[in-house]
Amino acid sequence: MERASLLLALDFGGTKLTAGLTALGERRWRAHRRVPAPPGSNAQSDREIMMALVQDMLATAELPLAAVGVSFGGPVDAARGVVLLSHHVPGWENTPLRQWLEARLGVPVAVDNDANAGALGEWRFGAGQGCDSILYVTVSTGIGGGWVVNGQPYRGADGMAGEIGHIVIQPGGPECICGRRGCLEALAAGPAIARRARECLAENPTAGKALRALVSGDVETITARHVSQAAATGDDLAQQVLDEAAYFLGQGIGSAITLMNPQRVVVGGGVAKSGPRYFEMVRAAARANVLPGMTVDIVPAALGDDAPLWGAVVLAGDLLN
Amino acid sequence: MERASLLLALDFGGTKLTAGLTALGERRWRAHRRVPAPPGSNAQSDREIMMALVQDMLATAELPLAAVGVSFGGPVDAARGVVLLSHHVPGWENTPLRQWLEARLGVPVAVDNDANAGALGEWRFGAGQGCDSILYVTVSTGIGGGWVVNGQPYRGADGMAGEIGHIVIQPGGPECICGRRGCLEALAAGPAIARRARECLAENPTAGKALRALVSGDVETITARHVSQAAATGDDLAQQVLDEAAYFLGQGIGSAITLMNPQRVVVGGGVAKSGPRYFEMVRAAARANVLPGMTVDIVPAALGDDAPLWGAVVLAGDLLN
Repeated sequence: MERASLLLALDFGGTKLTAGLTALGERRWRAHRRVPAPPGSNAQSDREIMMALVQDMLATAELPLAAVGVSFGGPVDAARGVVLLSHHVPGWENTPLRQWLEARLGVPVAVDNDANAGALGEWRFGAGQGCDSILYVTVSTGIGGGWVVNGQPYRGADGMAGEIGHIVIQPGGPECICGRRGCLEALAAGPAIARRARECLAENPTAGKALRALVSGDVETITARHVSQAAATGDDLAQQVLDEAAYFLGQGIGSAITLMNPQRVVVGGGVAKSGPRYFEMVRAAARANVLPGMTVDIVPAALGDDAPLWGAVVLAGDLLN
Repeated sequence: MERASLLLALDFGGTKLTAGLTALGERRWRAHRRVPAPPGSNAQSDREIMMALVQDMLATAELPLAAVGVSFGGPVDAARGVVLLSHHVPGWENTPLRQWLEARLGVPVAVDNDANAGALGEWRFGAGQGCDSILYVTVSTGIGGGWVVNGQPYRGADGMAGEIGHIVIQPGGPECICGRRGCLEALAAGPAIARRARECLAENPTAGKALRALVSGDVETITARHVSQAAATGDDLAQQVLDEAAYFLGQGIGSAITLMNPQRVVVGGGVAKSGPRYFEMVRAAARANVLPGMTVDIVPAALGDDAPLWGAVVLAGDLLN
């Protein structure tokens, strides 16, 4: 193991590509690039854009590259370093991404999904430091999760542990992209919040003034971010929709705590930026859904959007042990 | 570590007391005693009965006793070896059982709750052998669970991991002893099966002939065991009640698989003796509640009522490492 060497972290998200360069033992980025994935992008164009970022970063690097870690926004076979699928970007089916990057960069590469990477990142460098067990939950377009248990990442028998977005919270509830009804994701992720806000606005033609104003009256363009923004300015309808979503998230996290009793739950992703009231609601719902004596310690992610990227740093560093 | 030495396993259940004697590395009982806890028993009388069993077994032992493992039917602080509470037997509050036994037997003692012990037992000696991760679920008067993950027992931040009986399956459903509604335990444990059978019999005065006959018409005395027996003889009403309970259990196990993706789920306890149809229903419900690609491997416990006792053997053996 060479101490003075560089670790490269890559994050293939559904809508953006991020690369970071750090050194073994360091906790800052020597270089960091984030670009949106262009409309109509596919697996090949995403890889090419990422390689351009990497070459740009490595061009001025003063130390040798030692290893690469990759966070991927979709199901991954971490043991083989193969991307199984992207739900957002076409063409990723069964892509041997580890092999592809090792051939181009000449160093060992490790690949994991973004929720596992986020859990690793928050556990080693963020809000989960020092914990023996954490559940990391990311709430954005979907709801994903990753586990650290007994002081080790835990991926499950099929690398699919942590799919908290697909536990059923409300039997017979709204349809989920997985085909079932009432999954947590269908009740508390960004699109669910936006859909619920549109429903409430349709039912209450005089309510939600601030929310309507944010989209200039074009209710169909409302996103979860608009709902958060309107709630922050005191819009009652937006606040109620956000409270509901937070409550559902807390119910789901409560079930996870009941089953696993983790030391801490770290919540990241865009929706989790909705502020302290959101977190209070999540905590209250979780507390109402666990047994007396069970720890309910639910905190915002500390690394923000870079949690999976820092997890990729952990993956890269672990290759050198 | 002395190889040719004895391990003593004790199981304090709610209604029976069991002790087993084996030797390090052996997989058979050199002695095994099980007695019912007498009506009106308390913590002190249970301990005295257990010590009588132990003295009887050790009187003829030809090797020295090396360590003791204890499975306790209730919340335990495993790290300190203290029983926190029994829900069935009065007087156990904050009993330093490890210390009490060490003073009497002069060897190291380890204590854990019965669900964790059952998980350990099935993992090391039973239906979970060779698995990297298992969930053990015990379905009897209550529903408990224990985890092995990454090839290690996992107890959680407060020693309460595995409380699958208290995840909410049916919001607003039947009241649970924990004070909430619609918990898995309130839908699928023995008392829930008996209650539901009584309700169905009251609604259908001409149905359930075989079930009524089993209790000589005294519907109030029906237990889950009667329902299983009647179902096995083809009683439609009993079969439907049992199917429903199995389906709820499968839903709960499905949520656990979604969250943790264990390699195998091992189901023990009295209700799990209801036969192959019960297990098929559990599996079908679990499959309908997980994502595609997730392993659904649900099997009956191999060690039967002795799973916690074999787990106690593991606890005892681990004290010598």
